[in-house]
Amino acid sequence: MDVVIDMVIGAWETQNKRVTKLLEKLSDEQLMAETAPGRNRGIYLIGHLAAVSDGMLPIMNWGERKYPQYEKLFVKLPDRAEALPSIAEVRAFWRATYETVAAHISKMKKEDWFTRHMLVSPEDFAKEPHRNKLNILVNRANHHSYHLGQLAYLDPRKEE
Amino acid sequence: MDVVIDMVIGAWETQNKRVTKLLEKLSDEQLMAETAPGRNRGIYLIGHLAAVSDGMLPIMNWGERKYPQYEKLFVKLPDRAEALPSIAEVRAFWRATYETVAAHISKMKKEDWFTRHMLVSPEDFAKEPHRNKLNILVNRANHHSYHLGQLAYLDPRKEE
Repeated sequence: MDVVIDMVIGAWETQNKRVTKLLEKLSDEQLMAETAPGRNRGIYLIGHLAAVSDGMLPIMNWGERKYPQYEKLFVKLPDRAEALPSIAEVRAFWRATYETVAAHISKMKKEDWFTRHMLVSPEDFAKEPHRNKLNILVNRANHHSYHLGQLAYLDPRKEE
Repeated sequence: MDVVIDMVIGAWETQNKRVTKLLEKLSDEQLMAETAPGRNRGIYLIGHLAAVSDGMLPIMNWGERKYPQYEKLFVKLPDRAEALPSIAEVRAFWRATYETVAAHISKMKKEDWFTRHMLVSPEDFAKEPHRNKLNILVNRANHHSYHLGQLAYLDPRKEE
């Protein structure tokens, strides 16, 4: 079972590292641009990914969101609905949530991964044991990847 | 172990269904458009995803590629390097590879998923047991998701 947990954590880390690497490469100006005409800006998508990672804390039973004020701005509201924090703040938000989640992951015991996440009731979990914490990581890695494909369009030289 | 295999197959199927659903929604004309200015066209990305799925056959030891001629067009070459097949052919290519891969997945035994994939040697696999067939599915689901984020830009009403 260890190997499977390592695989899923590895996939999650891969996506996070790709976002971080892209963030390091892109200028503040590039991050303020739309990923495509009329679509979400880079700053919004980075904030969105960070806010979704922050939202993993309650879902994984790791604690409360550390940045509840950003859930509205980057998850509930679309881009341009309200003024966003500065790009420096959004970069820091990404880094902080990444590190917080990584620290929690490193403390998880094997068997913890197969316990229910907090969006599913004990009754439903008994019938649907795949709705566990490891599955959250599988799904969030795919979510990161989805928006990473869009963020890649901010990089003038990146085609894939 | 069953639950983990179900989770990973489920994530793979989710991404495939999302691509299929988007394909059903988009017109041929929309699929011929660029996902963003100067970026890959929809037809290329669909062909790319199908060609990568077709490439799973040898990697998973399920057989040879069924459409080797498309590997060059949709994987080795960038978009616009050569004339692509018609959009009807690319739609059919997507459907066919999706069904082929799904049929192979349905025949896999539990323990098969934890054997090495064909890109790793037996010697390296002994040291790196995570390089197994299930991990290919994890990675390919993320790859689908990445390009799905870009394909979503072809849909005028889809913002996420």
